Amino acid sequence: MITFDTRPDQYKHWQLSFDGPVATLSMDVREDAGLSPDYKLKLNSYDLGVDIELADAIQRIRFEHPEVRTVIVTSLKERIFCAGANIMMLRGSSHGAKVNFCKFTNETRLAIEDASAHSGLKFLAALNGICAGGGYELALACDEIVLVDDGNSAVSLPEAPLLGVLPGTGGLTRVVDKRRVRRDLADFFSTLVEGVKGKRAVEWKLVDAVYPTSQFKDAVRKRADALTAASDRQAAGPGIALNPLNPTVADGGYTYSAVTITFSRGKRTAELTVHAPTGPQPSTPQEISSAGDQFWPLRAFRELDDALLRLRVNEPEIGTVVIRTEGDRDAVLAIDRTLVEHQSHWLVREIVLFMKRTLKRMDLTARTFFALIEPGSAFAGSLFELALAADRSYMLHDDNEENVIALSPMNGGPLPMSNGLTRLQTRFLHDAAKVDDLLAHTGPFNAAEAEEAGLVTFAPDEIDWDDEIRVAVEARAAFSPDAMTGLEANLRFAGPETLETKIFGRLTAWQNWIFQRPNAVGEKGALKAYGEQGRPEFDWRRT
Amino acid sequence: MITFDTRPDQYKHWQLSFDGPVATLSMDVREDAGLSPDYKLKLNSYDLGVDIELADAIQRIRFEHPEVRTVIVTSLKERIFCAGANIMMLRGSSHGAKVNFCKFTNETRLAIEDASAHSGLKFLAALNGICAGGGYELALACDEIVLVDDGNSAVSLPEAPLLGVLPGTGGLTRVVDKRRVRRDLADFFSTLVEGVKGKRAVEWKLVDAVYPTSQFKDAVRKRADALTAASDRQAAGPGIALNPLNPTVADGGYTYSAVTITFSRGKRTAELTVHAPTGPQPSTPQEISSAGDQFWPLRAFRELDDALLRLRVNEPEIGTVVIRTEGDRDAVLAIDRTLVEHQSHWLVREIVLFMKRTLKRMDLTARTFFALIEPGSAFAGSLFELALAADRSYMLHDDNEENVIALSPMNGGPLPMSNGLTRLQTRFLHDAAKVDDLLAHTGPFNAAEAEEAGLVTFAPDEIDWDDEIRVAVEARAAFSPDAMTGLEANLRFAGPETLETKIFGRLTAWQNWIFQRPNAVGEKGALKAYGEQGRPEFDWRRT
Repeated sequence: MITFDTRPDQYKHWQLSFDGPVATLSMDVREDAGLSPDYKLKLNSYDLGVDIELADAIQRIRFEHPEVRTVIVTSLKERIFCAGANIMMLRGSSHGAKVNFCKFTNETRLAIEDASAHSGLKFLAALNGICAGGGYELALACDEIVLVDDGNSAVSLPEAPLLGVLPGTGGLTRVVDKRRVRRDLADFFSTLVEGVKGKRAVEWKLVDAVYPTSQFKDAVRKRADALTAASDRQAAGPGIALNPLNPTVADGGYTYSAVTITFSRGKRTAELTVHAPTGPQPSTPQEISSAGDQFWPLRAFRELDDALLRLRVNEPEIGTVVIRTEGDRDAVLAIDRTLVEHQSHWLVREIVLFMKRTLKRMDLTARTFFALIEPGSAFAGSLFELALAADRSYMLHDDNEENVIALSPMNGGPLPMSNGLTRLQTRFLHDAAKVDDLLAHTGPFNAAEAEEAGLVTFAPDEIDWDDEIRVAVEARAAFSPDAMTGLEANLRFAGPETLETKIFGRLTAWQNWIFQRPNAVGEKGALKAYGEQGRPEFDWRRT
Repeated sequence: MITFDTRPDQYKHWQLSFDGPVATLSMDVREDAGLSPDYKLKLNSYDLGVDIELADAIQRIRFEHPEVRTVIVTSLKERIFCAGANIMMLRGSSHGAKVNFCKFTNETRLAIEDASAHSGLKFLAALNGICAGGGYELALACDEIVLVDDGNSAVSLPEAPLLGVLPGTGGLTRVVDKRRVRRDLADFFSTLVEGVKGKRAVEWKLVDAVYPTSQFKDAVRKRADALTAASDRQAAGPGIALNPLNPTVADGGYTYSAVTITFSRGKRTAELTVHAPTGPQPSTPQEISSAGDQFWPLRAFRELDDALLRLRVNEPEIGTVVIRTEGDRDAVLAIDRTLVEHQSHWLVREIVLFMKRTLKRMDLTARTFFALIEPGSAFAGSLFELALAADRSYMLHDDNEENVIALSPMNGGPLPMSNGLTRLQTRFLHDAAKVDDLLAHTGPFNAAEAEEAGLVTFAPDEIDWDDEIRVAVEARAAFSPDAMTGLEANLRFAGPETLETKIFGRLTAWQNWIFQRPNAVGEKGALKAYGEQGRPEFDWRRT
């Protein structure tokens, strides 16, 4: 089973060091420490395990090191920054494993950009050597890219010419959409195995600057200091420790403190429940800092995030997830009030941003989600986002009308989707004014009111409930899993597209197509032929 | 060989009739008149041949019938509007044929929306019976949808639950992005084989109105009259006839009056040349109307459009197209001035809109385009758009500096890409002011100036030219065709995404992925199993 828990003293592939406001994250991949013994991670090439550590490091800098304003991303290997995703790993991976690997690496790079945009944490890619493929895609996620000018070191995206696949971890999109490299230059660059170096790399805007070897370290430090000076990150430490989640893992599911997930593998379904907090909750930054990673929203969303990630990679056949919440709705609303009231505090800001990223992870999880809203549930405010993120929601219309949901200001802005809109805005694209009306509503909505307001999909009564839910879940779980993935990827992201959604929509979808094509993954395909004797053999028909 | 030339008196599947400002386009598919004898086009299901006629009819209404303001799209079959794309046709088609079929049908539906948005030609889908899959996708492209309320007729998108594929002709995108149906309702609707009818179809915004059978015809006519009254189409007939193009078709290529394309099949390349006009050209609406379809921009772009379409479906292995222009650059610039000066005239407007659509067709053609700019070429104004649409352009830096290009106001707005920006704006995303500067430049650009301005990719000198071009074309033609398709689909559309680009990027890319998956097209896949004994067998792993 692949797990996502790690910590700096367990890293095999990265070194994380601190010098006041500047952190340095140095890649030093251990060849023999890949997730599988089937490949060697040569030349700082990476697999999912390397990226799990990277994601963890970025997360920890955000929570544990509020004093940091700039992160230098570099390598400890001589003359090599990173050779990109390991090709032997890709070659040996199933289609689903390739897709999940790319999705997680994309999310990690977007987390870097999220930290830059919202936490004032700036990233400087200090390319001390060859930077190819996924290595350059990592650099593209940073705010600035500097490259050593040693006559040899180049940036490159050799995936298409060498392997017959795409730079699918955001590479193509970031080149033309983020760095705004001219499309014809991008076309040439993306077909050039050896890449571009020196002055041309700067002229084409592939990097921000190049420096001779002798000046490189000083120049990197100077640029890092400039980024630090320009950062608006609030230096208000100390940080809080992110302790291991330590779920109880059994064959039938995982149990965390606030999240449980159980699998019905025969039915290809899972039941995911999030428990609302109990007892008095911190309500000031001081109390929140003291509670640290035990503060419910951080704890519950970390657990939810971990459950989603484990589900993705370890339970491929679970296609439909039923989501429930349980507990004290008012406690959730009280926490939402605290989060909104203190959103300018660095830790509260980080917690809310983490909740946002977790909900985005759910939006991007290729599983059907049905939210079930029953008496005793706690679908209120930030937890109601789970129902809004679900493909459908069913709310029991109980005779007593005690089953209710509630909105909070957390539904009105702090937790946007990757399309830049809130889930309420995306839901009511046809009627923006309605969103304001709903947010202005005081008090909860019972089932009839929620259905009338369009906040839930269906509100069956007590007579119909069991059958309707059973039929809906069974029917969903019986459809083609691929058709459901494609359907959800299109229906979940109505409205504007952003760099972020372009990466997951356009780029990822084309990459997934190519990952299925014999020209890439067939016996004579480019990904199979690379490094072996003989050249790939292509079916030349253009599609 | 599949051809795209047709005319109303040759239609097999549609009837086109006129009643003043209201045209009626009635689907009446001949079961035994499919492009292949391998399937029967039952229940107004369609294949590419049916859609070629539809595209032709819409084109003719625009050019030949300027008096028309509203088009009613309906069916002559009893209780059936359209059953969608023919399943047996899809099942028997190669991957490439499926993809090309979907691309053309998407372009046809976008041409309907283009006519509505820019020509004031309004479309009313009058659904007189069952409207399933691609039938509903056609309706979604219309301005209004009315459905007969006979207790049986429904709209539906049964592709996912029935066939394991997507409603890929814009269906999913238009439901949530154009009609802004709530995503959870869209999710439910898109998994419901029987679809939605009556009042619920209106409430969910799937249709605009339903009428009992007895009132249906009158209601349709009334709504058509209301659309007519609201249209701003200029009633300034008479129209002009669109005569057959009649290219000379030989094994080595096609020769039209202003366009030639020759194939080097062994090298998997084509050479496409567009010839500038010669002699005096019409310069007033009166003269343009008299010239009719022989007016150079209409003639040349109709020929270019036809050549691109034939290339797509008949020459799948030609992966790289070298584009040249020839002739009198100033004649092209003079025509551009005429087009801009008289752009408010209905016919000029239609011609410019057609040029725009043809260039979009090129943007969406899954072949590499390299523009070669050599002395004697005519890459000026609207013809320079071909170089801007190309993946790269090479301009010979001749010793005499006589090789030039030129811009015109046609590069500044009238010919936007599907992302809503001009090709110059997309090219210079990083520097919007530069576009204005370039458009303000008077006179031509020689090779050094064009390279410096970023208007061309490379400007090799006479010594390097032949080798550099040969190597570039050979290298391109040797890459994985799938990787090039994916690369181009990502690099060509930098900047904003629109409903149109979402359809071709996100939706189409996912559909192409599914069209490659065993769960759809394998021996036990849903598309193969439909209508046969037994149910499909799925690999249940979610991806």
